[in-house]
Formats: sequence, C-alpha cells, structure tokens
Amino acid sequence: MTITITAFERSPDGGKGLARDTRVRWALEEVGQPYEVRPVSFRAMKEPAHLALHPFGQIPTYQESDLVLFETGAIVLHIAERYEGLLPTERNARARAITWMFAALNTVEPPILELSMARMLEGDKPWSQERLPLVMDRVRDRLRQLSARLGDADWLDGAFSAGDLMMVSVLLRLRASGLLDEFPNLASYVARGEARPAYKRAFDAQRALNTGKPLPG
Amino acid sequence: MTITITAFERSPDGGKGLARDTRVRWALEEVGQPYEVRPVSFRAMKEPAHLALHPFGQIPTYQESDLVLFETGAIVLHIAERYEGLLPTERNARARAITWMFAALNTVEPPILELSMARMLEGDKPWSQERLPLVMDRVRDRLRQLSARLGDADWLDGAFSAGDLMMVSVLLRLRASGLLDEFPNLASYVARGEARPAYKRAFDAQRALNTGKPLPG
Repeated sequence: MTITITAFERSPDGGKGLARDTRVRWALEEVGQPYEVRPVSFRAMKEPAHLALHPFGQIPTYQESDLVLFETGAIVLHIAERYEGLLPTERNARARAITWMFAALNTVEPPILELSMARMLEGDKPWSQERLPLVMDRVRDRLRQLSARLGDADWLDGAFSAGDLMMVSVLLRLRASGLLDEFPNLASYVARGEARPAYKRAFDAQRALNTGKPLPG
Repeated sequence: MTITITAFERSPDGGKGLARDTRVRWALEEVGQPYEVRPVSFRAMKEPAHLALHPFGQIPTYQESDLVLFETGAIVLHIAERYEGLLPTERNARARAITWMFAALNTVEPPILELSMARMLEGDKPWSQERLPLVMDRVRDRLRQLSARLGDADWLDGAFSAGDLMMVSVLLRLRASGLLDEFPNLASYVARGEARPAYKRAFDAQRALNTGKPLPG
C-alpha cells in the first residue's frame, strides 16, 4: 500500500525544512515507511482538486489507499498509531506523549505563528518595530515554561516520541529569531532532534526537492 | 475510578462557557462519565503544585488514578478513545474525526486566539484600530474555507464526533465578534452543537461554578 504525501512544489523557505511536510517525512522515516511525494504549486493548492483533499488549501496531505488526511498533527498521530517507533506501548505514557503533540501545536506554536505573521505580513506596517518585542515576549513566556519542564532531560517524557518530534519541529521555526538560544536546554533539545538519522533523511529529501540537487552519497 | 478536572476558580468570562474546561466537561457528558471539579485560583495556577500537573500553568488538567493530562485536545482525545460516543469505530472515519480535532486547534483556533490577543492585550495600543481589521480578515479566511467544506451538512464528517466538539468549541469564541454571523451555515453548526443535551449540561455546570447559583431544575 503506497503512502503519498503532498509538499510545496517550491517551498517558501527554499529547503530549510520549515515547511510542514518535513514533520510528516520525519515521522515516516522514524517508523521506516517508504512514501511518495507529489509536489503541488501555490496555484494548484487553491483549486478544487486540492481543496477536496485539504479544505484549508495547504500542504501536506496524506493518502493511503482510500484514506485522505490533512493536518500534520493528525497525520503524525495516524502514522504513530499504525507503525511502531513513535509512541510508547504503556497506556499512560502513550497518552502523555500525545499530550505533548497537542501542547506543541496548540500552546507553543500559536505565539510562534503570530511572530511569523508579525514579520511576514506586518513587517512594513508603522507599528511593526514597537509591536515585535511584545510578540517575542509571548513566545519567551512559553519557552520559559517549556524549558523549566524539560530541565536536563533528553526528551519531554522519557523516550523520544511523536510528542518530541512535533515539539522540535515547532521550535525549529524559531532558529532565525535567536530566541531559542536564550534557553540553552531547548537549543540542545532541538539539536538532539535534528541529529536523529530519521530527521536527517527527511531534511535531505525535502531539500533535494527544493533545490533540485541530488541527495548526497 | 474518579475523574478530576481543574477549572478556573473564577473564569475570566464570568461563566459564558469560553474557558477550556467546558470542552472537557462537554466530552465527559457526551460519553456519560461523572467527574469532579477542583477550582484553581489564578495565583495557584502559577505555583509549583499546579505547574507539576500543567507545565504551562493553565486549566484544565485531567486526573484519573495515576494518569495526569493537560491540553484539551489530548484530554478530549483520551476520553474519546476510552469511552464510546465521540469517535466512529470505522478506522478511516476515526482518523478523519481526529483530523478535525487538530484542524480546530492548529488551523482555526490560532487566528481566533490572535484576535483575542489583539483585543485584550493590545486594545489600548496606538495601532489597535488600524490593525484589528487585518486580524479579523485572517479569521475570515479560515471561516470561509471551513464554511465551504461544511456546506449544508450537519457535522464535518458524517455523525457528530470529537472533531465537531472541538470545532464548535473553538468557533464559540467568535460569537461576540459577529464574525460567525457572516457565515450562516457555521452559525447554524455552532447552534447545533450548543443544542446537544451534553453541551447544555456542561455549560450549566461551569456557569454554576462561576456564578455560585444552583443549577436549574
């Protein structure tokens, strides 16, 4: 059974791995499942054929015979439930790992998205310079709390899980801002995620699509 | 086995049902599980005892013997997996219902949260009047896409599910803005959610806590 995901034909980040297909690629690499990628242009993303797969006109989507999913959280959870390697088998530990997925997407990512919006959509507005520090402080509040919880642990709840995959993916969006470096244990946490062979394979695959360069080796 | 959730000792909305414990109460009412509520003051929410349960210092939390969860998405999903009534049994339909939970929390709620922030935290800033329409347009973009997908269906994917519970809960936050009324099928969708007996019981219970008035009947 073939798994097919969609990705930007040309990612706005030029292959830095910040587009959300990287999260799904990473999950599939962690569980060792091959997949195919169908690139979608910005124009096609807003057309009926793609909207039938993804009502919000985004990427990635996930197709596996007659199942169509969107939302990286749902796709990664589906992969984690279907294949071994991303969720603990013990019932309570499994629920806690899923909790961290939701925490990444609904508590940590929203202020990070707001910071991106402030830069990308409002960077030329008269209020931009004065407002940006307020938005950055909202991100810092979350990072401080997350940093306190992580402490000197390697991962958020024992072994690496889909919760860490999602949290690292969300935090990676902050690298250019410098905010991550204010919390050394979070910077190390993200680096541990990036050092995983599965992440590297996912990163290289999305970069190859975006730069047209062949994979190394 | 007792289920205990936390809620605001005094909700900032004064009992309008917008605090996130309502989502968890609603889920528990749908599956017919009794629960206890432990009110937490704003001060206690930032203290170590509560931070041990919820690293971001918020409500609700969920406790069931030695399992502690936070994040409404994770709590509602846990309830939906453990008890019947919130997720279809057919595998693909179940994955799609979970997709709508993530869509509510990671795609539809972030611009709604941004609108709340713009009002609550930046309402007195010099840019507030000029910026608010931009933020409202970001919410409209999502509502337009959601409205197109819902069409004239009662629920997002066949029968009512945890995906609808979460989407209705997120959209309810928009009522005061008037934005919901621009999309009549979404306004009806939210009204259908509110008309469910389980929602009404959840709403009444949180209101009783916040107003100190006894439950009707």
